[in-house]
Amino acid sequence: MRIGILGGGQLGRMIALAARPLGHSVVVLEAAEEIPSAVASDVILAAYDDEAALDELARRSDVVTCEFESVPPTALARIAAAGVPVRPAPEAFRIASDRWLEKSMFRELGLATAPFEAVDDQASLDAAVERIGLPAVLKTRRNGYDGKGQLVLRTAADVEGAFAKLRSVPMILEGFVAFERELSIVAARGLDGTVVFYDVVENIHVDGILHRTNAPASHLRDAIVEEADRAARLILERLDYVGVIAIELFEDEAGLRINEIAPRVHNSGHWTIEGAATSQFENHVRAITGAPLGVTTLRAPSTMINLVGLIPDANAVLAVADAHLHLYDKRPKPGRKVGHVTVVGGDPDPIERLAKRA
Amino acid sequence: MRIGILGGGQLGRMIALAARPLGHSVVVLEAAEEIPSAVASDVILAAYDDEAALDELARRSDVVTCEFESVPPTALARIAAAGVPVRPAPEAFRIASDRWLEKSMFRELGLATAPFEAVDDQASLDAAVERIGLPAVLKTRRNGYDGKGQLVLRTAADVEGAFAKLRSVPMILEGFVAFERELSIVAARGLDGTVVFYDVVENIHVDGILHRTNAPASHLRDAIVEEADRAARLILERLDYVGVIAIELFEDEAGLRINEIAPRVHNSGHWTIEGAATSQFENHVRAITGAPLGVTTLRAPSTMINLVGLIPDANAVLAVADAHLHLYDKRPKPGRKVGHVTVVGGDPDPIERLAKRA
Repeated sequence: MRIGILGGGQLGRMIALAARPLGHSVVVLEAAEEIPSAVASDVILAAYDDEAALDELARRSDVVTCEFESVPPTALARIAAAGVPVRPAPEAFRIASDRWLEKSMFRELGLATAPFEAVDDQASLDAAVERIGLPAVLKTRRNGYDGKGQLVLRTAADVEGAFAKLRSVPMILEGFVAFERELSIVAARGLDGTVVFYDVVENIHVDGILHRTNAPASHLRDAIVEEADRAARLILERLDYVGVIAIELFEDEAGLRINEIAPRVHNSGHWTIEGAATSQFENHVRAITGAPLGVTTLRAPSTMINLVGLIPDANAVLAVADAHLHLYDKRPKPGRKVGHVTVVGGDPDPIERLAKRA
Repeated sequence: MRIGILGGGQLGRMIALAARPLGHSVVVLEAAEEIPSAVASDVILAAYDDEAALDELARRSDVVTCEFESVPPTALARIAAAGVPVRPAPEAFRIASDRWLEKSMFRELGLATAPFEAVDDQASLDAAVERIGLPAVLKTRRNGYDGKGQLVLRTAADVEGAFAKLRSVPMILEGFVAFERELSIVAARGLDGTVVFYDVVENIHVDGILHRTNAPASHLRDAIVEEADRAARLILERLDYVGVIAIELFEDEAGLRINEIAPRVHNSGHWTIEGAATSQFENHVRAITGAPLGVTTLRAPSTMINLVGLIPDANAVLAVADAHLHLYDKRPKPGRKVGHVTVVGGDPDPIERLAKRA
């Protein structure tokens, strides 16, 4: 099939590298100067709201998917209107790109989440603080990622003027959750409704950017895994979802709270390229092309470490036993993910020492 | 680094797909109409004896390798003369492309092989038959593969005129070896002389074309593995080899006989993409770029089945547990390898049923 992808970053790159051996061709729509996906894809160089480019993408694709979540809804609508299936469906992006809709869906599904309230002005913020208490986190409903678009409110002084400080856009206030660790689960749902789950993993962030994923998370209780699987299944079915999804989870003594979903392949699933029987990228391709999903069995405990801002000496990385290097053909800049390393069944400490950030 | 490859077939394709995540770029020189390598490579469309194209390949490469063995020696010499390292070195191709030189090297290294004699005319053929006896196999010294350029001689009548029948080129006569099975070993040698071995595998041919590889070969005796490793090491060191090599072996009651070498990644090593910690393709890239070699540990017993002449229904293949499909973007024609499937740790029988040949 001909797969179209909105976005040409490293996620699209790894989707393309997984799609080509299955016999699919790939075309991406991307306006950025660097296009990591170009390694194994054709490129339509244009903005996501360029109607002629969207029409071209639709014409050149049998199915369209996205590698980021803040896709303009009009772009997806235009492609769907051209008769080309968008998978996962636009509804998943509409909900995932809006924290209020997302958290409301969790609540409707009966899934545990942090207490939250909609905030539309300073007055509703004050009222929400009254009900939820401090500390709390104020977040824009849209366009927040990697810690951007957030304010932690600890005192009454923090609350004052906070709505204006985040530029007076629609927000939500979330109760501060003193979680022990952040977990995530990557799952996939096929066109026929089949659902598969990868192992629940633990994610460690540095400066708000994912630093490391341990697969599986250490000392996982069965009840946690069951709850993560149950939440993933409920969300996938609620959205009639087709493709790979990632769900961020907070674990505390009481159990799990669902934090957010990413309606796409996810950084916390990169370990699956070598660490699982079928990678998240291949399973995303299988799902959106209507193929049966691949088994997700863990091959061996794996650790994924992001390369952020700096590319270490490649030969030093490759000298580490069962270390697998993935570079994205991106120019290093501070805070920019330029690659990752997965260590399968071995000691990730040498990679920790090599993966210094700029 | 910038990797140049002579040849743009499926082997170059899988080398390129392995090279790109490591941060390398790839350019291939190929004249064929279909270029499977183009999936993740730039292409110089030209014949292997096109001097301007070879100069361009040299200019655009930091290191050059080959994905087939009958490379014109002048092509390799021209690239080396331009100061670009050719890995493995031209000497390996000179020897591997000539059965007489190849078998003579085995003999010099003290490795067991079928009895053989050089044949340069009908008279020397008659003399060789006298010494070796019948049945025997007459093979052209050069350009034989997949059973082509061979004649089995069973009777005196077969011997008569046989030299002319194979077009009067230089040949060798080999004693007929009643082997039990064909094994092979894929090994790699790094720029620093480090040698790594993959598991010894069993190869099953149909109509002279590889049909199936079982990794590892069943019921392998330790002595066989030791002898295969020893032979591989001796050959790699004798050739001061850099890159991946495949060695075909015949097993009989007495032990192993070395049949031939392929100075490149090899069809009997395709299972390593999913079945080993590091694939033969990545290790070839690591070797020729001077990087440390990756561990070759078997992840789980694996079976590789070639798709020859026909592409089965992809969804039927992907429905088989832990089956991994690799298509090469080649138009199916009878006898043409158009893809392969590797089953890891599971039952390959359903793939056997799907992989019917045209």
